[in-house]
Amino acid sequence: MKVNKNLPTPLYHQVKDYLEEKIILGEWDPGYQLPTEKELSAHFQVSTITVKRAIHDLVNKGILYRQRGKGTFVSRKEDKDIYQLVSLRNEAEEDKHHPHKSLSFQEEEAGVKIGKMLGINAKDKVYKIHRLKIEEETPVGIEYTYIPYSLFPGLTETMIEDDLFYNVFTNKYGMNLGKAKIFFSTIIADEYEANLLKIPKGEQLFVLERFTYTEEQQIIEYSRFIIRQEKSRYFIEIRL
Amino acid sequence: MKVNKNLPTPLYHQVKDYLEEKIILGEWDPGYQLPTEKELSAHFQVSTITVKRAIHDLVNKGILYRQRGKGTFVSRKEDKDIYQLVSLRNEAEEDKHHPHKSLSFQEEEAGVKIGKMLGINAKDKVYKIHRLKIEEETPVGIEYTYIPYSLFPGLTETMIEDDLFYNVFTNKYGMNLGKAKIFFSTIIADEYEANLLKIPKGEQLFVLERFTYTEEQQIIEYSRFIIRQEKSRYFIEIRL
Repeated sequence: MKVNKNLPTPLYHQVKDYLEEKIILGEWDPGYQLPTEKELSAHFQVSTITVKRAIHDLVNKGILYRQRGKGTFVSRKEDKDIYQLVSLRNEAEEDKHHPHKSLSFQEEEAGVKIGKMLGINAKDKVYKIHRLKIEEETPVGIEYTYIPYSLFPGLTETMIEDDLFYNVFTNKYGMNLGKAKIFFSTIIADEYEANLLKIPKGEQLFVLERFTYTEEQQIIEYSRFIIRQEKSRYFIEIRL
Repeated sequence: MKVNKNLPTPLYHQVKDYLEEKIILGEWDPGYQLPTEKELSAHFQVSTITVKRAIHDLVNKGILYRQRGKGTFVSRKEDKDIYQLVSLRNEAEEDKHHPHKSLSFQEEEAGVKIGKMLGINAKDKVYKIHRLKIEEETPVGIEYTYIPYSLFPGLTETMIEDDLFYNVFTNKYGMNLGKAKIFFSTIIADEYEANLLKIPKGEQLFVLERFTYTEEQQIIEYSRFIIRQEKSRYFIEIRL
């Protein structure tokens, strides 16, 4: 296959479209390792710079990802409903695993920032829970959860190890949950995040921030989820 | 104010926390121009490299933004409900402006990718509508909308110029809207996007993709919204 040098569409764009079509049509499955840049440039009869640029664009779009020393692969994205983030575990899910690796479980002063978020004083104590979300033995997300100490006396690491926060809130502490407010943003991985997630520093990460309110509009939890992009694609469905 | 060089927390982290507190406490409002890096390094008695790193982190988090040749400013983020993206205009909003600049309005073949998304053949025709979203005279988002031609005969640029797509679908074409499915992701601004949005190439952008379904589960629209991060923060509220 040759690209068409007479078209007004830039060459790298034609290569990009061609690669993307392979993936959309399912000829290249998730996990498929792409030919090398040299092979692709021979195949299309374009420079490796053109191929590099096309691949770079598809990596930026999360369609491809690179593994150091191994090559370039088609991303395997799992579509995830945002509602999963706020759902109570039902019986059907009872034996599913939600594996986390605990990084720390501390009682500490809220500080200005977290205090403001939880609507408490900077000097008030909070539980700060820092965990790594694991899927198929791979770290996929970094989680920080902050909970006012005064509302959940006696909360222990064991209680949340094998249960969802929302189950603990309702079953163990009798809270009436009202609503969750979820914010979306992105960050660039710093060294700490890159090391935890085993990704290159500077990669884009997706951020979900969740505030949980009781029926009485009191904020009882703030969580920050920092998520690897090439592993999941979050969505929400809205009835019209 | 001096940072505490005896603390285990890295210096740049202490500077970052201090700057962030100023913003959270409202001492520095959105739009506030920060002191120069030199001034900050004198103030904290740390190197400008340390200050640079703290500011870099806050820019990456979207809390600060840089303007070329002008300096560093506190971001002005407007919280936006995702439901805005799927709402019909109500009477109260009737005279609000939703200004867009039209970049192109074309009828063309869907192609493999858009065809797959809309559930039509690659050779089927679609309307491709490309617009720039303007707020306070500033470009804040790039929008692409694809609509199957066969479902909306006679759609013109004028019809959507002053009305929401959903109003046109229901009022002009009698469609029964069923649901919208919205996906979240991020990209890195390429040259085209950077020029349109007047931002530096390589900046992070937030992407919302919307699929609109009829009651009968037919996809009637696919839109891709590419949004400047420092202008808005999207959220959703979920009843528990």
